[in-house]
Amino acid sequence: MRLIVTGASGRMGRELIRTVVETDGAVLVGAIERDGAAEIGADAGELAGIGHLGVPVTDDALPVFARADGVIDFTVPVATVAFAELAAQARIAHIVGTTGLSEDDDAKLAAAARHAAVVRSGNMSLGVNLLAALAKKVAAALDPDFDIEIVEMHHRNKVDAPSGTALMLGEAAAEGREVALDQHAVWTRHGQTGARKRGDIGFQALRGGTVVGEHTVIFAGPHERIELSHRAEDRGIFSRGAIKAVLWARGRKPGLYSMADVLGLSD
Amino acid sequence: MRLIVTGASGRMGRELIRTVVETDGAVLVGAIERDGAAEIGADAGELAGIGHLGVPVTDDALPVFARADGVIDFTVPVATVAFAELAAQARIAHIVGTTGLSEDDDAKLAAAARHAAVVRSGNMSLGVNLLAALAKKVAAALDPDFDIEIVEMHHRNKVDAPSGTALMLGEAAAEGREVALDQHAVWTRHGQTGARKRGDIGFQALRGGTVVGEHTVIFAGPHERIELSHRAEDRGIFSRGAIKAVLWARGRKPGLYSMADVLGLSD
Amino acid sequence: MRLIVTGASGRMGRELIRTVVETDGAVLVGAIERDGAAEIGADAGELAGIGHLGVPVTDDALPVFARADGVIDFTVPVATVAFAELAAQARIAHIVGTTGLSEDDDAKLAAAARHAAVVRSGNMSLGVNLLAALAKKVAAALDPDFDIEIVEMHHRNKVDAPSGTALMLGEAAAEGREVALDQHAVWTRHGQTGARKRGDIGFQALRGGTVVGEHTVIFAGPHERIELSHRAEDRGIFSRGAIKAVLWARGRKPGLYSMADVLGLSD
Amino acid sequence: MRLIVTGASGRMGRELIRTVVETDGAVLVGAIERDGAAEIGADAGELAGIGHLGVPVTDDALPVFARADGVIDFTVPVATVAFAELAAQARIAHIVGTTGLSEDDDAKLAAAARHAAVVRSGNMSLGVNLLAALAKKVAAALDPDFDIEIVEMHHRNKVDAPSGTALMLGEAAAEGREVALDQHAVWTRHGQTGARKRGDIGFQALRGGTVVGEHTVIFAGPHERIELSHRAEDRGIFSRGAIKAVLWARGRKPGLYSMADVLGLSD
Repeated sequence: MRLIVTGASGRMGRELIRTVVETDGAVLVGAIERDGAAEIGADAGELAGIGHLGVPVTDDALPVFARADGVIDFTVPVATVAFAELAAQARIAHIVGTTGLSEDDDAKLAAAARHAAVVRSGNMSLGVNLLAALAKKVAAALDPDFDIEIVEMHHRNKVDAPSGTALMLGEAAAEGREVALDQHAVWTRHGQTGARKRGDIGFQALRGGTVVGEHTVIFAGPHERIELSHRAEDRGIFSRGAIKAVLWARGRKPGLYSMADVLGLSD
Repeated sequence: MRLIVTGASGRMGRELIRTVVETDGAVLVGAIERDGAAEIGADAGELAGIGHLGVPVTDDALPVFARADGVIDFTVPVATVAFAELAAQARIAHIVGTTGLSEDDDAKLAAAARHAAVVRSGNMSLGVNLLAALAKKVAAALDPDFDIEIVEMHHRNKVDAPSGTALMLGEAAAEGREVALDQHAVWTRHGQTGARKRGDIGFQALRGGTVVGEHTVIFAGPHERIELSHRAEDRGIFSRGAIKAVLWARGRKPGLYSMADVLGLSD
Repeated sequence: MRLIVTGASGRMGRELIRTVVETDGAVLVGAIERDGAAEIGADAGELAGIGHLGVPVTDDALPVFARADGVIDFTVPVATVAFAELAAQARIAHIVGTTGLSEDDDAKLAAAARHAAVVRSGNMSLGVNLLAALAKKVAAALDPDFDIEIVEMHHRNKVDAPSGTALMLGEAAAEGREVALDQHAVWTRHGQTGARKRGDIGFQALRGGTVVGEHTVIFAGPHERIELSHRAEDRGIFSRGAIKAVLWARGRKPGLYSMADVLGLSD
Repeated sequence: MRLIVTGASGRMGRELIRTVVETDGAVLVGAIERDGAAEIGADAGELAGIGHLGVPVTDDALPVFARADGVIDFTVPVATVAFAELAAQARIAHIVGTTGLSEDDDAKLAAAARHAAVVRSGNMSLGVNLLAALAKKVAAALDPDFDIEIVEMHHRNKVDAPSGTALMLGEAAAEGREVALDQHAVWTRHGQTGARKRGDIGFQALRGGTVVGEHTVIFAGPHERIELSHRAEDRGIFSRGAIKAVLWARGRKPGLYSMADVLGLSD
């Protein structure tokens, strides 16, 4: 599969280039940067630290899209919307890891998805998306006799709590139960809390050391417990998930897909 | 829902009686024992240690089946086959926790399931069945880049390894991957084992203390890991699962169902 | 070893009676209740549900102390202070699981400990005391490059957070680091928390299901982590710890001891 | 503290150079390689990928030892024995991570340790050594009513089982119990194993993915469990442990020390 990486000279872009090159059945045919970027003309492989590939970084996307089967795009909303249009014209798969899209951007992505397969996720890790899909299923299967708690641990430099992924897992569990998360979330426990309320979804955030990211969803029922965990060892899991998505999307009919679709876990 | 418990004076039967009585929406209308059992005529509630219920233990099943909506049956194959026929005639749900059925018994159960809803499982715990369904789904979603390992821990008096439940989880994972477990199972590791073979499914059994039963299925991939765990605190989880099954089966169309169906997790 | 149980007809007293009877090398020679208790004269074994033992419950402690080697006491402060005096006179080991003692009571206990071995703990579980001793040692061995987090999980009906045992573990860790816990404890994390501060000791409380009690102390450093956990399966661990303490205390020279001493883990 | 790294151009040597440079209070004053190595004369910082340090790699150890306070040495036995003599003459701390020393080499190291502080360990990770010290203490504190199980997980390419570290933990636990490991170790469990024997120490090895190394020692007793775990995120923990050891050893009186001494956890 002939692939393009956008934002090619950024940290994520270089990681994606390395992952494409390592993947059987994938070949890098384009590396795109914004107009006037310093790296225009440089070799994509050399930028990524894996030696010459013969693929120069370019800001001229159109001819590159014309000879590719898919594009992996972790950039910014304004660029992603433009790439979506090009991918739609070229009828090639568009994998979108960009975050922060407005409603208007969303509408444009949806419009593009009428002509090409678009896979979009705020977190491309296979494992995290799998965990979210499982959490939703288990929450739907078990009644609220099973109390849901979500625990995460991250390194000491993380500045917010709980993590975005913990929230995504909480949303998945709430959806499985057909309730709104914000009406059932419990963010802290300290002092005289009283007994746990039926239906609560609790969040707890641990911080320490250099932990890349660990998440557990606990379903604690009468005398038994289910625990679903994900442990990340490095941040390369996002680019590997994106590659899996683009390989899956090849030849897929147009539409807006999620990582749950890629994993065969959507309902 | 009006329920019958068979094998009413055994350890499991008495546990089931207690669980039925504790369950909202369920009422005990019959307690059956084999012909000539010493407890015939005794009150089912008194046998179960929860006070008089006005339900005498009987060996005359027919009239009891006529006025019930479901029967929960953890007995022996010969009895279960007879109860299946009665339940089919009465068109009432039959929950079968009995183990050791022959192929011939299976055929009779399948025949009965043409007239009534039959739910059957070798392990009625909600959590364990959920875990098996999840293991199958995850194994199907991930490619063999994710190595599967199954770890269990039980109390020091368990005499075999791995546990039947660990095997059930291994079968589920193998099914998800569309391979035969016996061609991929690795039962022990000691000494110069060489590198792990792609596709192996490893089993490890821990023994110690008074642990009721814990099972974890690990999917270890490149730089990320998914872990699915179940922890049992007591053996009452089996009777609670059976009650959940019979409530689910009420009014269900005839057929042979599994706990995965009860949980809404079958494909 | 000839043992007395005080508060013999209470839930803890009856549990202690059962545990004494089960223990090799221990024999029950006395069962004490407060003046005028309804159970005076009843047989201690029958009260405990294990059949006749020939040990009547009495409110006359003096002659019973005269023929015993140790007394196990989970009662109330006023009674414990009186028992301490009797044990001191009789020179027998006094195991104190009573909580809520005032400073004045403490002084009386210390005075009694000049004449007999007294072992005192707010939590008699071997495992929890072991965990506290380990947490202190590890905190002393590692510098504050290792971030300390304490996580606990209890059943849904627990009304306060964190658990008393989590606090005891936090105190132990703070002591190991030679700091005051209240100046370093972080009780909640939610929203824009900023990066973790060096030296913080974080607490997180999970609630759900029927979990008896689980505690983990995490030391998360640069690229490695130590985790120390305790899992309780039932509340009988407290009486078993008390028995271990009394057997240890036999023939020990007078003094006020902790469970860390019993475990050989005090410095 | 002025430090020397031996085997400076190897993978471990370069890692050590980076760690020394990152450490407050440490300065690299020497980088040694064997006679005739290609890297002689190259700058140690450039070799380690952290820029020019002004410390050329040399094979002339004597003058370097004369102006240093400590040497960190992960090389081969023959070199280590020679360095031990030089360190003894110079009265500087010698940290030995070299493995495979013969009894004769051991004797020479012990002789050198009469003149200088020598810290030696087959595994320099703080966390692993801490875990071993804790395992020994807990095994000594608890009687054999607590069953010991050791579980480890490593990446799929590890060719032996259990890991050397798991064995080290087993030895520590056996020592705590004052028994010989080889008379109590259980390496595999499969089929009709019978009940667990009192005093057994079980080992289980999990393999999968890219796991750097995880070890857990479980003490499973009647209705409670202690679990002590270590998780490594990368192999840099060995060089960080060595630095901690050399800083600790400065000014220490001559002798042969272990990482347990460094951690303040030896008895």
